[in-house]
Amino acid sequence: MEPDDILPASVPGAVRAALLAPLVDHHCHGVRRGELTRSQFEMLITEAGTPAPPGTTHFDTPVGTAIRRWCAPVLGLDPHAPPAVYLARRTELGPAEANKRLLRAAGVVAFLVDAGRGGRELLSAAEMGRLGGAAADEIVRLEHVEEEVAQEGLTAVGYIHTLAERLAARASRAVGLKSIVAYRYGLDFDPARPSRGSVIAAAGRRLTEPGERLDDPILLRHLLWTAVDIARDRGLPLQFHTGYGDPGIDLHRSDPALMTGFIRAVRPVGVPVILLHCYPFHRQAAYLAGVFPHVYVDVGLALTYTAAGSATIIGELLELVPFHKLMFSSDCHGVAEMCLLGALYFRRGLTRALAARLQQGEWNASDAARVAHMLGSGNARRVYRL
Amino acid sequence: MEPDDILPASVPGAVRAALLAPLVDHHCHGVRRGELTRSQFEMLITEAGTPAPPGTTHFDTPVGTAIRRWCAPVLGLDPHAPPAVYLARRTELGPAEANKRLLRAAGVVAFLVDAGRGGRELLSAAEMGRLGGAAADEIVRLEHVEEEVAQEGLTAVGYIHTLAERLAARASRAVGLKSIVAYRYGLDFDPARPSRGSVIAAAGRRLTEPGERLDDPILLRHLLWTAVDIARDRGLPLQFHTGYGDPGIDLHRSDPALMTGFIRAVRPVGVPVILLHCYPFHRQAAYLAGVFPHVYVDVGLALTYTAAGSATIIGELLELVPFHKLMFSSDCHGVAEMCLLGALYFRRGLTRALAARLQQGEWNASDAARVAHMLGSGNARRVYRL
Amino acid sequence: MEPDDILPASVPGAVRAALLAPLVDHHCHGVRRGELTRSQFEMLITEAGTPAPPGTTHFDTPVGTAIRRWCAPVLGLDPHAPPAVYLARRTELGPAEANKRLLRAAGVVAFLVDAGRGGRELLSAAEMGRLGGAAADEIVRLEHVEEEVAQEGLTAVGYIHTLAERLAARASRAVGLKSIVAYRYGLDFDPARPSRGSVIAAAGRRLTEPGERLDDPILLRHLLWTAVDIARDRGLPLQFHTGYGDPGIDLHRSDPALMTGFIRAVRPVGVPVILLHCYPFHRQAAYLAGVFPHVYVDVGLALTYTAAGSATIIGELLELVPFHKLMFSSDCHGVAEMCLLGALYFRRGLTRALAARLQQGEWNASDAARVAHMLGSGNARRVYRL
Repeated sequence: MEPDDILPASVPGAVRAALLAPLVDHHCHGVRRGELTRSQFEMLITEAGTPAPPGTTHFDTPVGTAIRRWCAPVLGLDPHAPPAVYLARRTELGPAEANKRLLRAAGVVAFLVDAGRGGRELLSAAEMGRLGGAAADEIVRLEHVEEEVAQEGLTAVGYIHTLAERLAARASRAVGLKSIVAYRYGLDFDPARPSRGSVIAAAGRRLTEPGERLDDPILLRHLLWTAVDIARDRGLPLQFHTGYGDPGIDLHRSDPALMTGFIRAVRPVGVPVILLHCYPFHRQAAYLAGVFPHVYVDVGLALTYTAAGSATIIGELLELVPFHKLMFSSDCHGVAEMCLLGALYFRRGLTRALAARLQQGEWNASDAARVAHMLGSGNARRVYRL
Repeated sequence: MEPDDILPASVPGAVRAALLAPLVDHHCHGVRRGELTRSQFEMLITEAGTPAPPGTTHFDTPVGTAIRRWCAPVLGLDPHAPPAVYLARRTELGPAEANKRLLRAAGVVAFLVDAGRGGRELLSAAEMGRLGGAAADEIVRLEHVEEEVAQEGLTAVGYIHTLAERLAARASRAVGLKSIVAYRYGLDFDPARPSRGSVIAAAGRRLTEPGERLDDPILLRHLLWTAVDIARDRGLPLQFHTGYGDPGIDLHRSDPALMTGFIRAVRPVGVPVILLHCYPFHRQAAYLAGVFPHVYVDVGLALTYTAAGSATIIGELLELVPFHKLMFSSDCHGVAEMCLLGALYFRRGLTRALAARLQQGEWNASDAARVAHMLGSGNARRVYRL
Repeated sequence: MEPDDILPASVPGAVRAALLAPLVDHHCHGVRRGELTRSQFEMLITEAGTPAPPGTTHFDTPVGTAIRRWCAPVLGLDPHAPPAVYLARRTELGPAEANKRLLRAAGVVAFLVDAGRGGRELLSAAEMGRLGGAAADEIVRLEHVEEEVAQEGLTAVGYIHTLAERLAARASRAVGLKSIVAYRYGLDFDPARPSRGSVIAAAGRRLTEPGERLDDPILLRHLLWTAVDIARDRGLPLQFHTGYGDPGIDLHRSDPALMTGFIRAVRPVGVPVILLHCYPFHRQAAYLAGVFPHVYVDVGLALTYTAAGSATIIGELLELVPFHKLMFSSDCHGVAEMCLLGALYFRRGLTRALAARLQQGEWNASDAARVAHMLGSGNARRVYRL
């Protein structure tokens, strides 16, 4: 892809260079290593978790249109290729070649990968790095570790001990931790660290049905505070899924402002809290990043899925966010198209915001270039100590 | 009105034709058949329900300005006519001629009319169709039917039986059902179907004061679930007022995300849930339409009242909504000006969004034309089986 | 500063004149009278209440960039001066001269000043007026008066009596009252006037620890209703902090829609309720102003802090707000830069909104000029009876 396609507005050379510089993708997942049928592919370009209603297709969405527009040329097709043509070409190239082309076209210098409970069908962090020509590090998903520990036939006390040990061990090989408490309970959780007694009682109940996913509010809070302890000891940040996602979330309970009490409680500890996605509560997130010194923000998932409309969201985030508090992520998951689109719309949205500020005489070019570097990679390098 | 006035941006011919094609107005009300004084007219162009404060006028609003701009020429005046001139001309033409001109200028091919408890002063669905040169069908407002049944001196068991029968009878002549539970309780209602015992007890209480409007949460839920049963049997969609409206609503309890539990519960039943208006929670609504296969969305009321600012709202809705999930409605009520403005701003806002996508190279013209047809009429024809 | 710098869009002469006309700043605070170190200055250009994290600066924010862009020329520097240069020049001029230049450049004809518990380091209302070449009046902050009364060793009954007397006395020299219940409890307070018995009991508890700030919900409501009585008697409006602010606020509990019950309860009394700031709930606020005849709105704080992004917020507010319901405020606090930036971005944002409406043929120039006068000063003159 030519830079002139990516950056439509005319901006001065130094700003342009900063906008095209490699990005740190501080939150993504592995992509599928194997071939995908059309129905498999469609399920990976939606948060719905279900096929499109009869007579419709998940390609008839902002992200579906964006794949045809921007990913088709990377695979050697004309822009706006029909879905069937796009998928046939993808199959023809084979998944390894398609993934490689798409990840490299994203222009990412480092992937921070949440492997979740991935499984062998997803590329590992190391493989993502190799294929994408980038460094790669791991983010530990808290609930995944807990669900492992819960199935090991432990006593309640053993569970507490093993959970802390296991998390610490995983954290020793990672650059950050991540919570999906927004899915398992909501961000309106009680911010206080639960008492040991209440944790033992809740663990006792949990261990009688260990196959289940974790949704006990006391154990979720215990998991969070255990993670805070480890993050403090190791100097790691703690990511939170906030805002929209799949239909398992209650959207009105995923507003990051609901976490304000927890954010206040963590502040003396000094652990950075990173709010992921945030849409449609990104203005709330920008406010939190503005008034709490340890809070950071991105709009990862939102840029990919809103595609042609994403510049508005970047614009709204930039209304209030301090320039040292915003980062880039693609939240790429399952298909490498998402990585390319996340990077592309981050650059395009930022270009539009900076070009407007330059054109209106609000900013000068050296500030614009400096800020573009901070948002694209500098802030993530500092916070994750890359 | 000339097409060139309506569609300011230069767009390719096929897209232009799609944008000018007749619309299905899937949610409106009847307009007043008689002459209107200035104070009557002012009360019909606001959601306030009260006269403007002394020294001010409801014409000094976005919608008031839009009436002077866009409706004046349809009545044969210059754009921006002063309110007194506009209303004098309206009186001169007479209500039938004014209504006819305004409804026809909207370019609507079918009206789906919620007659509510209307009364003789409002045009019926059939009259709306005749005057507007369009087809017309009915939407049954649930609470209206319930309030009829509650006044018939029934026992609690008779109430349950008669309510189901009456709703089914009304539904047999309609193309959809509509709930205003947002006004009567809030969208944070308990999503579960209430037990028969609790409904009988609540009905017993209700029938002792049948003149009152329905606000018992158990009976509201019973009404909804009765409607779901009937909608399932007859293949009808179920509309919900969400978001802003008159001062009777608690805005923070009208966020459609609060209905997520109900939406999940209805999903296996397969009844389409249509979120009306949604503003300022239209991004939340678009998310729900994106992840739940049976959820649809519009921003009816919001376009008319935000007028010159409405393109932003369409832009925000289009950020995430699948193209097979968005519809047009005017929520026209009382004066035919609202129908014209709803249609006009839908076309203008969509034009701006599509023109931007074409100009930025994001979409191609054939996709833009196809999507414009889906949003303007195709989706409504499919969902309402017109 | 030259008018051509402030108003970038080409608008007709009458509109231009209206946009440049002096503003009534209906909500501001005093600025610091003394010299400021860099760390002191940085603490006054953020809502964080803490220094920026190590290696970062509060100048790397939208408002910090705006100070360098717009305030530097007023102090005789080039636009975009580095922070150190800017602060050196400020020191060189001395605080009186810097404050005078900045306040006068704002083009304000009257300051309505909430002195809070200010203290001698802040300019008084009269001093703000003299330095800024403007009239000046006072707004009484309710909680400040209560905290004075609570420390006077009164009985519970004496507290009730003295509080009412003291508030009335202060109100007799003021043009409005202001509540910060959003900070002390949240806007989800019980709207009902508390019973005398409950107030006496709560006052009894409060008076045993009078040094504390007021956060008892019963006494907060008593204070509000006492203020409503006085405002009714004296024809004064009642301001509310809503939306974002410093980290002491729970953002999700500062949505003005949460006050709907209180707004309904105050309506028969006729006291104007003025919603300040509102961001990111300004659409909710505009709705409230649209449907309740006694509700008014501004986005004071939000314009200053969002700076180059502020036009979007004005645009969103104008979507629904009646033109007789919106006012200007700077929420200037601590440094006079905030007053200049508030006025500047109000004018620039309004210019962009009006220019778009003119260019799209939505409004005519005489309406645009008339509305600009209403928003900039006319509405405030009417509501505050200036």
